[in-house]
Amino acid sequence: MPLHHQPQHDSGPLFVPCPPRRLGDQVELRVWVPTTWPLRTVALRTLVDGEISTATLEPGPELPGGTWWTTSVQVANPVQPYRFCLIGEDAAGSGEHDVPGYAWLTAAGIVPWDVGDATDFRLVTHEPAPDWVNDAIVYQVFPDRFARSSGAPTDHQGRFAPSGLPSWARPMVWEEMPSVDGFVNGEQLYGGDLDGVVEHLDHIASLGADVLYLTPVFPAGSAHRYDASTFDRVDPLLGGDEALVRLSEALHERGMRLMLDLTTNHTGAGHEWFCTAQADPTSVEAGFYSFTEHPHRYRCWIGVPSLPSLEHSSPDLRKRLLEGPGSIVGRYLAAPFLADGWRIDVANMTGRNGAEDLTHEVARTIRATMREVGGSTGIDTWLLAEHGHDASGDLAGDGWHGTMNYTGFTRPLWAWLSPAGSELNWLGLPMTTPRIPGHAAARTLRDYNAHLPWPSRLHSQNQLSSHDTPRTRTVVGSREAHLVALAALASLPGVPTVFAGDELGLQGRTGEHSRTPMPWEAIGRLDRGEDLEATTAIEQEIDAAVLPVLRELLGLRRTHAALRRGGMQWLHMGTDALVFSRTHPDGDVLVHLARAAHDPVELDVASLPPVGEPAPLAAVGPARAATIMTGTGPGAGTTMVLTADGPGATLTLLPRS
Amino acid sequence: MPLHHQPQHDSGPLFVPCPPRRLGDQVELRVWVPTTWPLRTVALRTLVDGEISTATLEPGPELPGGTWWTTSVQVANPVQPYRFCLIGEDAAGSGEHDVPGYAWLTAAGIVPWDVGDATDFRLVTHEPAPDWVNDAIVYQVFPDRFARSSGAPTDHQGRFAPSGLPSWARPMVWEEMPSVDGFVNGEQLYGGDLDGVVEHLDHIASLGADVLYLTPVFPAGSAHRYDASTFDRVDPLLGGDEALVRLSEALHERGMRLMLDLTTNHTGAGHEWFCTAQADPTSVEAGFYSFTEHPHRYRCWIGVPSLPSLEHSSPDLRKRLLEGPGSIVGRYLAAPFLADGWRIDVANMTGRNGAEDLTHEVARTIRATMREVGGSTGIDTWLLAEHGHDASGDLAGDGWHGTMNYTGFTRPLWAWLSPAGSELNWLGLPMTTPRIPGHAAARTLRDYNAHLPWPSRLHSQNQLSSHDTPRTRTVVGSREAHLVALAALASLPGVPTVFAGDELGLQGRTGEHSRTPMPWEAIGRLDRGEDLEATTAIEQEIDAAVLPVLRELLGLRRTHAALRRGGMQWLHMGTDALVFSRTHPDGDVLVHLARAAHDPVELDVASLPPVGEPAPLAAVGPARAATIMTGTGPGAGTTMVLTADGPGATLTLLPRS
Repeated sequence: MPLHHQPQHDSGPLFVPCPPRRLGDQVELRVWVPTTWPLRTVALRTLVDGEISTATLEPGPELPGGTWWTTSVQVANPVQPYRFCLIGEDAAGSGEHDVPGYAWLTAAGIVPWDVGDATDFRLVTHEPAPDWVNDAIVYQVFPDRFARSSGAPTDHQGRFAPSGLPSWARPMVWEEMPSVDGFVNGEQLYGGDLDGVVEHLDHIASLGADVLYLTPVFPAGSAHRYDASTFDRVDPLLGGDEALVRLSEALHERGMRLMLDLTTNHTGAGHEWFCTAQADPTSVEAGFYSFTEHPHRYRCWIGVPSLPSLEHSSPDLRKRLLEGPGSIVGRYLAAPFLADGWRIDVANMTGRNGAEDLTHEVARTIRATMREVGGSTGIDTWLLAEHGHDASGDLAGDGWHGTMNYTGFTRPLWAWLSPAGSELNWLGLPMTTPRIPGHAAARTLRDYNAHLPWPSRLHSQNQLSSHDTPRTRTVVGSREAHLVALAALASLPGVPTVFAGDELGLQGRTGEHSRTPMPWEAIGRLDRGEDLEATTAIEQEIDAAVLPVLRELLGLRRTHAALRRGGMQWLHMGTDALVFSRTHPDGDVLVHLARAAHDPVELDVASLPPVGEPAPLAAVGPARAATIMTGTGPGAGTTMVLTADGPGATLTLLPRS
Repeated sequence: MPLHHQPQHDSGPLFVPCPPRRLGDQVELRVWVPTTWPLRTVALRTLVDGEISTATLEPGPELPGGTWWTTSVQVANPVQPYRFCLIGEDAAGSGEHDVPGYAWLTAAGIVPWDVGDATDFRLVTHEPAPDWVNDAIVYQVFPDRFARSSGAPTDHQGRFAPSGLPSWARPMVWEEMPSVDGFVNGEQLYGGDLDGVVEHLDHIASLGADVLYLTPVFPAGSAHRYDASTFDRVDPLLGGDEALVRLSEALHERGMRLMLDLTTNHTGAGHEWFCTAQADPTSVEAGFYSFTEHPHRYRCWIGVPSLPSLEHSSPDLRKRLLEGPGSIVGRYLAAPFLADGWRIDVANMTGRNGAEDLTHEVARTIRATMREVGGSTGIDTWLLAEHGHDASGDLAGDGWHGTMNYTGFTRPLWAWLSPAGSELNWLGLPMTTPRIPGHAAARTLRDYNAHLPWPSRLHSQNQLSSHDTPRTRTVVGSREAHLVALAALASLPGVPTVFAGDELGLQGRTGEHSRTPMPWEAIGRLDRGEDLEATTAIEQEIDAAVLPVLRELLGLRRTHAALRRGGMQWLHMGTDALVFSRTHPDGDVLVHLARAAHDPVELDVASLPPVGEPAPLAAVGPARAATIMTGTGPGAGTTMVLTADGPGATLTLLPRS
């Protein structure tokens, strides 16, 4: 039974018109059952205070392609799982037909046997992320490598030459490529600063991005600044507190937003707290860390001595770092900085230590501070967790709003789009990046993400690459595949997040190597319509084809609510072609991604929740979406035929009929 | 690629020779890779304090059928997930071959795409269940319906006639069938008592059972006694405290054990605490319940007013009921009662109420009390939770030791063995019991149980039926299917639990209807070798064929450590045939279950972790396991051929070579 002939439900507004706000809310749930899936009835199964509760859905009128079944449920618990039982005419029969007599409809698809609750749909009444996050597009900037402001100090060779160059720093010429070596790279100081970001907001806005995410801005012992020496002020090398205020104001004037980055898991060994702790074992700060042998042996991030771990069992630490308007978390959300959110570094480890697990407590504490400060500033802020593996256990809904969704977005797309024989490391595993068939990648995209409450998925970042990974273009290996990846970025659920430089097709073989200084000279030529095939100043290849496609696709996201706020239905999982729709009461958007030429994929439009005549929105590369009307009169139908002669993508609007 | 040609790991002692006891322990992990699965290397992926940690396994010498790969891991967290990455020669290739170049080996099998951690294997250092639970076989007794002691008071018609008959009770003649109607059934008092149980311990022991699980013994407002009126004493109708002590002593004299049943979620509306609470809103007891309108409106179990819910937010309640030797939990574990464990009724709801979720706290508190009392009595006790759906979230390892595994045992076996057209309700869903193919049932047996930490699965009860369900025989509909179900009971991981009467093939269409008085007169004739085809006193069909098969199969479990303590590998998932092995260093036991005649299943024995010549242990019904030696010299091999001409089962010992 092809996917497009199967019953549908998802957590989007087509199937859950009014998601719950608080306990006790009555919520309507709808299931679409195409006529191709005969059944006797549909039952809801939910849990109330830990006990199963069931209800039978009511069918609506028979429509040409199927029937809406509906029920209503009163929300009893803050995260309430539910799924549907599809009960066939021959429920007590052998269940071996194409349509099983007994099957569960879950967020991980239809399963004809009993499954656990982990992939149930969920009703969530915890306070969600700010509404603006639903529509956000993020642009990630690594401050040292983005832009020097016009007045930045340099020597006669163009090397960064500030007064007070840190002793660890190797000042760099902007046009040099950074080192692949992590240690060397951390010392390479290019001298990007926050006023440099202000000067290039036009570029960021031109992509459609409206949230600027800055990696850390605190003084530190490296160019990446994840080893802070204080959280009390912005690094003077970046322009200090005043520059951050100027950037914040410039962003807010444009209706854009600012997201900062905080390391709650550890500090640098040069942090003022750690220095006090080492100097005085009786100090309050000594309790922020765990010394096995004072002062030189202590717990640290995966054994790296320059990054001593913070101990969240210390109430003093929690007060200083997390709790209330006076904490570090609170300070930068308040005036004059007025940041719109925090990205929490290494959130997956923060508060975890042997038998102790305070991660949820840390997350809830930060969230409470954000709520409290937001009460004064009027700014509703976003709390995002870095997480490199299965984040579902950390996304109960009352802590982090979302994560950097490496597991549910980055990894499956890489593994589908990487060329055979890639030499890149496979994100921490002792192997090179595999090339897997589309149906395998789709299972991760569908089934892993089914473990996340839907709001957490929508409010997570989708990144094709970041400052911690090889760059998109190096991963997928070709312009063609890069453009397919952009179509996925613009259309999958979650907040599209562009790592500065990816819009130019820049290359990077490791996280550090990807921390490329932006080639502004070349961007200028690009913007003036000049030929870029000539060498550029930086030793980087730039692909002028990426930027316009990215702008177009992110623009479609801006235009179509389905792409931002819609639910999601998988319609085809092939080896080289993937097809899904983002479902929305205002019209679905059908997305077709091809990594290579593939046989035509035919979709029976009548089996989908009723839509009108399909309208093409975009075609990337040699991919096409054709609409064929079949027959006349009552038996007439519409078939979408999706083809590709090579890597490409199509987006098609299916307006609500 | 058939299952028996795939790499293997499980949490049993063949693959994890020394499971961890405490944090910091170094644990050896082994993976068997048959030559049929070519690969380049095997990597371990685990989580340490929330961060991924990987290691490459070392291959041992090449054996004829495959290679052992091993690594060692230091346990960092109390529940540490891990899995293996199978990295093929063409890891960077298309992954579309029969052997994928990139795949995860998890407790839910081999998956060639990224999956969440929910089905990872786990290393658990929380204090496990008592060692005796690994070997336990439980017999469940519903006291009112098991046996009247020889001196039990009856009237001239044989009706139960105690002094002090409760006002709610309808005294019954032992030989009458109980009502299918739950309300009527609850009033039907047959007069079974605890001395009656003592008188029939020979029968229980003859099955191989060594744990007696009694449903509640406290005074109550019904025959089922789940609506206690006090927890302070044993119901005089059952013989009072003294009878419980006599039973406990009789059991312990035989080396048997006693498990009691406590309702921590609610009391009866006639409970002394509730009466005080209703009488005096300022009483301590008023805080044990939640009154929306004192005294007549209060929170209760799924809206049933006779069962007011207990509020575990009350410290006074926790102290009275759960905490320490003086609590109800503590009292019956201490002398003179010396119970060996508690089964907690409605454990899935206990402590859950809207936004409040204290279930883990309740479980941990009970466990702490059990540990404390055990320190005095020297008895290591078992804590078992009733749970009717996905219990994985409640089995972190530091609370309940296990559950009644309805989801991971009862339901999949019922759905596989039920005849088409069953008229029984499908355990709470608005449909009749389906008949599903074996491969579907096996997916639940494998994948759902993969969500439980292995110790929790081993220390859960496997029941084919209970006092809350239709009886096994009525569910599966035939002697033949019943015997197949017994083979599953004796061989799947978990504690086999027999509901009194099931060993006679008694019938029951609902939970209440299954609360059958035991037909002792017929059992006596059976034991004396007399013909049972003649009518028996009770209006029940008895099947004399069940008892000897159950004794034989449970006896095999007693003999073979693999069946009690072994890991588990799925080797075949067919429509009508299921094959798995219980893996153990002393020898595996291969189990073949057939619900109907099926085509021969051939297993290449050389692909399994090295074993010697297969030795038949048991054959139930028309099922056969044949061993065929193929070829001679270096290419020689052994094939097991499993066949059945109808419902049946075979068990075969694969001794370690």
